[in-house]
Amino acid sequence: MYVSMSRLRVAASESGALVDAFRARAHLVDDAPGFIDLEVWRSDRDPEEILRVSRWTARGAFAAYMRSDEHRASRGRIEPALQAAIKLERLEHPHTYEVVAT
Amino acid sequence: MYVSMSRLRVAASESGALVDAFRARAHLVDDAPGFIDLEVWRSDRDPEEILRVSRWTARGAFAAYMRSDEHRASRGRIEPALQAAIKLERLEHPHTYEVVAT
Repeated sequence: MYVSMSRLRVAASESGALVDAFRARAHLVDDAPGFIDLEVWRSDRDPEEILRVSRWTARGAFAAYMRSDEHRASRGRIEPALQAAIKLERLEHPHTYEVVAT
Repeated sequence: MYVSMSRLRVAASESGALVDAFRARAHLVDDAPGFIDLEVWRSDRDPEEILRVSRWTARGAFAAYMRSDEHRASRGRIEPALQAAIKLERLEHPHTYEVVAT
């Protein structure tokens, strides 16, 4: 199993709007081959810190999705005003992990 | 749902031993009230970075486990030599999150 984690930082005043945007997401990723699930986590100590965590059967499935039209469409749906409020930490690349034990 | 994430840093030469230790864990936590699951993630870009991620039905369940004898017993099982090789990042407190969207 393979995990992609993006750490987003957003002004506290925009934190609720970002969570709402995730709740209203188009679920385009859900049908991607090898996709398992996606969760959005918000720190209970720091509402500015939001993690987007997706799990995949294997690294190759995630890599294929990142190259897909669905991924581009998904990105395009976020409102520009909200997008501007988000700062991706350690920019561009998501952190990726193999699940090595359970 | 509630998530606790500890970021461990370990010398690359000890990374395999740490993963093995997690695979051989006593599963004492598995019967804790409110426990859902535990995964251990290792970065595929940086074998020194290992995340321990546990999910709970609610914050209170995690807090109760942290105060329990099972938690102390679980900690005590890690070999001192391996324990010495682990550096907990942003020490002591795990990062904790509410799952706000799926």
